Amino acid sequence: MKFATIPDGSKDGRLVVVSRDLSRMAPAEAVPTMQALMERFDEVSGALLQQYDAVNRGDGEAFDPSSAHAPLPRAWQWLDGSAFDSHGALMDKVFNMEGKFKPDFPYMYQGVSDRFYGPCEDVKFPTEDDFIDFEGEFGIITDSVPLGTTAEKARGHIKLIVQINDWSLRRIAPLEMKAGFGWVRAKPACAMAPVAVTPDELGDAWRDARVDLPLNVWWNGAKFGAASGYAMSVGFDELVAHAAYSRDLVAGTVIGSGTVSNETYREVGSSCIAERRGIEMIDEGEAKTSFMQFGDRVKMEVFDPDGTSIFGRIEQTVVKA
Amino acid sequence: MKFATIPDGSKDGRLVVVSRDLSRMAPAEAVPTMQALMERFDEVSGALLQQYDAVNRGDGEAFDPSSAHAPLPRAWQWLDGSAFDSHGALMDKVFNMEGKFKPDFPYMYQGVSDRFYGPCEDVKFPTEDDFIDFEGEFGIITDSVPLGTTAEKARGHIKLIVQINDWSLRRIAPLEMKAGFGWVRAKPACAMAPVAVTPDELGDAWRDARVDLPLNVWWNGAKFGAASGYAMSVGFDELVAHAAYSRDLVAGTVIGSGTVSNETYREVGSSCIAERRGIEMIDEGEAKTSFMQFGDRVKMEVFDPDGTSIFGRIEQTVVKA
Repeated sequence: MKFATIPDGSKDGRLVVVSRDLSRMAPAEAVPTMQALMERFDEVSGALLQQYDAVNRGDGEAFDPSSAHAPLPRAWQWLDGSAFDSHGALMDKVFNMEGKFKPDFPYMYQGVSDRFYGPCEDVKFPTEDDFIDFEGEFGIITDSVPLGTTAEKARGHIKLIVQINDWSLRRIAPLEMKAGFGWVRAKPACAMAPVAVTPDELGDAWRDARVDLPLNVWWNGAKFGAASGYAMSVGFDELVAHAAYSRDLVAGTVIGSGTVSNETYREVGSSCIAERRGIEMIDEGEAKTSFMQFGDRVKMEVFDPDGTSIFGRIEQTVVKA
Repeated sequence: MKFATIPDGSKDGRLVVVSRDLSRMAPAEAVPTMQALMERFDEVSGALLQQYDAVNRGDGEAFDPSSAHAPLPRAWQWLDGSAFDSHGALMDKVFNMEGKFKPDFPYMYQGVSDRFYGPCEDVKFPTEDDFIDFEGEFGIITDSVPLGTTAEKARGHIKLIVQINDWSLRRIAPLEMKAGFGWVRAKPACAMAPVAVTPDELGDAWRDARVDLPLNVWWNGAKFGAASGYAMSVGFDELVAHAAYSRDLVAGTVIGSGTVSNETYREVGSSCIAERRGIEMIDEGEAKTSFMQFGDRVKMEVFDPDGTSIFGRIEQTVVKA
């Protein structure tokens, strides 16, 4: 199944069931919002599947992904991992943090979740001098997960998969990281692609609780990267279990993969600018690519093997606050 | 004014106006919940003040602080500072992190906010081996704060003051801190004292955007500390401005002071066990006080000069999850 949230004047918007090809939609009859869906997922999924079949047959009305909200416009909890080792190694290079402490548990921080930008919303920053960067990620949304849930059991709590742009300020990020408290100023609100999908929509590409598909990224129209989501050192199941070690996870918890990155970054490219700068430092002795300027655009999209957009497109412009 | 939230079967509970001496209450007529109050504070405060005067004159019904929810039972955002330098110095001692990077900005992390424990709820943990600790704090709740708000303007956005118990797992805390991503497993849900108060309720004790009153803490009935909230290196106004640097703060954002601590800790005691262990390491060469065991109780309460409880009492028991 595929879901989106369309504007209705409220903060939470209106949940719609979206056809596989993203062309049609119908308001979800069983639940009004994505948050309500996550609270009642197993109970209402049968009825929603019937609606999904209907929109796939052409029922409903036209769906405009570019005008949608984030599928979950606000969440009670957003926990972001950093599960791609090649990204971590390049960041250590960029931030001059090689030799730092490597934990034997997954990296994870809690970020701002009272707002997720819609897929085509402008994103505002105080100044270009903070080194504005995008980060292409995959994420999952859980139903209610009890404290102490194992990775094996966590798989059943992964109800939806989403695609995320985790906006980052690279001047501030290493300073906040060195302070040890995680990121507040360096991590403003993220954006989500317009459509959230159930794991079965990915077919064989949902493998080992990872998304085995390239995340395509363009910066100002030029292709920037197409790294695969499969290279996570820990799967989303392990990220859920990690998060649930000492807390119940509220229904609608969003957990991110961290910036999608592959060891073959010289061939596949990157999902953030900082990583390209790290590669330049290794290959050319210094970082040459600048961060974003006001007016710059970033686009992110994921396709299934027949070329259909799975989550719809993120396409955002950076503007001055 | 003073406010609390009483159980009504919903997650957000029912907002009540509470008399100054915490004996009487009346359901708030203008807004149903604390979240709604924070979204409409300036608009409805006049009407609520009339209700407050009435309960102070004996109107309404009896208020039982021990059965209340947290004043804000769930928040879209909880940002905790660490503004007491003597606490930071003792933690560096305990965690063997002396010489670590000291930022020129306030410490702050984002923590779990989809649930705040009520003042007398048991708190569950996976194991005693994680070194269970309490942390007595003051906190504030803001209305909507725009990105870029200065510390001076932030003062007007501090609508309510609360008292918080920030539960912490000390085995995990230094590891997560060294990893640089802040705390997820080491910081389960916090508790709040039953009553939130407007700054004017503190009179002269609300000074420089700090609470100039001792936070009394008892562990299993024995007095543990009474450190003053005034010794913050930055006030709550500066914490709000820090948080709002690159994000709009949603109405109902809760910001914590960090563990209340004074340089005179040998006289006034401490607001967490880890700090007492740090003092023992300095004074006696080794930490002697153990962390909490299942069945242990912690109590926290703040009084005004005439002995009236300002926020009501936190009194929690630690239990096995």
